[in-house]
Amino acid sequence: MSGEHVSMPHSGLRVCVVAGDDAAPEVVLPTVALLHELVPEIQFTQALSGREAQERYGEAFPAETRAAIDSADCTLFGASGGPSRPVLWYLRWGKQTYVNIRPVRWLPGYQSPMRQPERIDYVIVRDNLEGMYPPREGALAELGTLASSGSWWQTPPVQETGAYAVRVSTDTQAHRVAEAACDIALQRLAAGYPGRVTLGAKYSILPRTDGRFREIVREKVREHPELSYQEFLIDDLGRRMIAVPETLDVVVLGNEHGDILADVASGSIGGLGLSPSACYGAEYAYFEPVHGSAPDIAGKNIINPTAMLLSGTMFLAHYGYREQATRLERAIARVYSEGHALPVDQGGGASTSDFIAAVRSLL
Amino acid sequence: MSGEHVSMPHSGLRVCVVAGDDAAPEVVLPTVALLHELVPEIQFTQALSGREAQERYGEAFPAETRAAIDSADCTLFGASGGPSRPVLWYLRWGKQTYVNIRPVRWLPGYQSPMRQPERIDYVIVRDNLEGMYPPREGALAELGTLASSGSWWQTPPVQETGAYAVRVSTDTQAHRVAEAACDIALQRLAAGYPGRVTLGAKYSILPRTDGRFREIVREKVREHPELSYQEFLIDDLGRRMIAVPETLDVVVLGNEHGDILADVASGSIGGLGLSPSACYGAEYAYFEPVHGSAPDIAGKNIINPTAMLLSGTMFLAHYGYREQATRLERAIARVYSEGHALPVDQGGGASTSDFIAAVRSLL
Repeated sequence: MSGEHVSMPHSGLRVCVVAGDDAAPEVVLPTVALLHELVPEIQFTQALSGREAQERYGEAFPAETRAAIDSADCTLFGASGGPSRPVLWYLRWGKQTYVNIRPVRWLPGYQSPMRQPERIDYVIVRDNLEGMYPPREGALAELGTLASSGSWWQTPPVQETGAYAVRVSTDTQAHRVAEAACDIALQRLAAGYPGRVTLGAKYSILPRTDGRFREIVREKVREHPELSYQEFLIDDLGRRMIAVPETLDVVVLGNEHGDILADVASGSIGGLGLSPSACYGAEYAYFEPVHGSAPDIAGKNIINPTAMLLSGTMFLAHYGYREQATRLERAIARVYSEGHALPVDQGGGASTSDFIAAVRSLL
Repeated sequence: MSGEHVSMPHSGLRVCVVAGDDAAPEVVLPTVALLHELVPEIQFTQALSGREAQERYGEAFPAETRAAIDSADCTLFGASGGPSRPVLWYLRWGKQTYVNIRPVRWLPGYQSPMRQPERIDYVIVRDNLEGMYPPREGALAELGTLASSGSWWQTPPVQETGAYAVRVSTDTQAHRVAEAACDIALQRLAAGYPGRVTLGAKYSILPRTDGRFREIVREKVREHPELSYQEFLIDDLGRRMIAVPETLDVVVLGNEHGDILADVASGSIGGLGLSPSACYGAEYAYFEPVHGSAPDIAGKNIINPTAMLLSGTMFLAHYGYREQATRLERAIARVYSEGHALPVDQGGGASTSDFIAAVRSLL
């Protein structure tokens, strides 16, 4: 789980690497090379997906890749441009990685559209399994069979042409997402942050789903008197991310709310190319940059590797290689603050390899 | 409907005024006074709601207020702090005002957190009736009765403790929201804007609801060769609002997506105190600031009246009083650009009445 940061390095760590589609391998493979230099004892095994797997095995997500994922402790994943999506769904729902962690932190040198980006330094903790994804849709006519439908303020429009989608929330999932948020808030408190959990949800309109989520998060935070708590309607929280990001420390969100607002947050620091993520389950984890596979720049050696490198620092820290994680993070920060080798999406002229070489020279 | 701007002023216009809760009357009543000065022929009738109605009639939404709403052409509404919520729900679902229009435009003088706020000038067109609101929730166990449930990639967790919420989408509503977006894009094109409709939805994951919405909006825009069209996943659109707002002209969104992202957009120009809105149906309309009722500053004469005044300009323009709408809009813009009477939330020291007096002196 997210909070169980191993204090001693995890010996014999086995990592599956799925480089992903389009431009994603251009950031994944050099990141793995750097991680291997930093911690030679970690065993990385590459597995194919998408077009390459199709060519070799006749399918985009072959049994060999699934076996490689299963026999590793975790996976480093690039990005899916479509062909590798089954891998991502397997990593998420197949491996039950229930919580998605997305740090949102501006570093000097990032090209942020905000006037005062130095105020931005928080972590989003998002439900990775429930809510509206995966899809559960059907025709409106079906809704009349739902036992509660007679109790609704407005009957569902069952005679009309159209569709429904169902959003699901279990107490179990709400509890473990809340717990992950508290764990991270405790870690941050220990590191000098406020230790404040902020919930965003539409509890005013949706009492049984979002209202219940609020109740569970509230109660969980209350178990830790050293943490503080605040809650906002999800629309108001979206506004606050832009207006007063300095009031946020650990933000806990449902699946689709987190999906949307984490990208807004990425926009506020300077783009998806800068945004790492980690997904944790009880028995598995995967690490991926939040950006897509960038087909338009595939093969050009200009994709920004920062998000993947920072996902690598989350990977290192999670398995107890904290010193190496800090070294890598500091090297990345220094490349940005010095400004000699900024990636193209950050207004510089450095290629992907130039940027990685600059980071490597500072390790 | 939103697009049917009357070219000649609407004679004998009857307007119901529901001032709302807490601090809302402090912006509604002086706005109505200004509107009355600008167009003396409009007949405004005030109706009570919330605590005042409770005291007078014994209920927060009395039959008298409902009758006043029904006998008017439209309503000017302040904001609900809870007690007036039934009025708002009646204005929305009772009067079937199906589309919510939220202009997002920075004016010089607004205290925006963005580095280049002058790039922000677009309109959000949002489904006002469907999606996740009003709530339709129930226990997870019920979901097994849905005919489509057997076809889902993951069966719903019917044995677990938890709840579902249903999101509904009819073709009829998607068509009229799409049409409203096209109407506004055509009006903006005529006024020198790009005439570009941007759809944001999760069509990748939710083909039958968001995918269908995308299809309908696409087709509707195609009927107008002078308009252009672009589409983004809702998370990416959220990022773009912050990163590249200058690429947006008319943004069309589902109910809950619009709820969240319109507030993010408000945050980008400088806050909810600056954000007007209008809701149109086939036979009714209402106009309201998007902010809440601000109970913490009720009675202090410091609430920012800009959002309500700008909602007033939308009201005037909609009923054909374009010259007066433009005069009011220009006066507001001049108060901000001159900077002598900025409201408290915009870093100034002007009271609500000071600000309104400054606007009035420039009409």
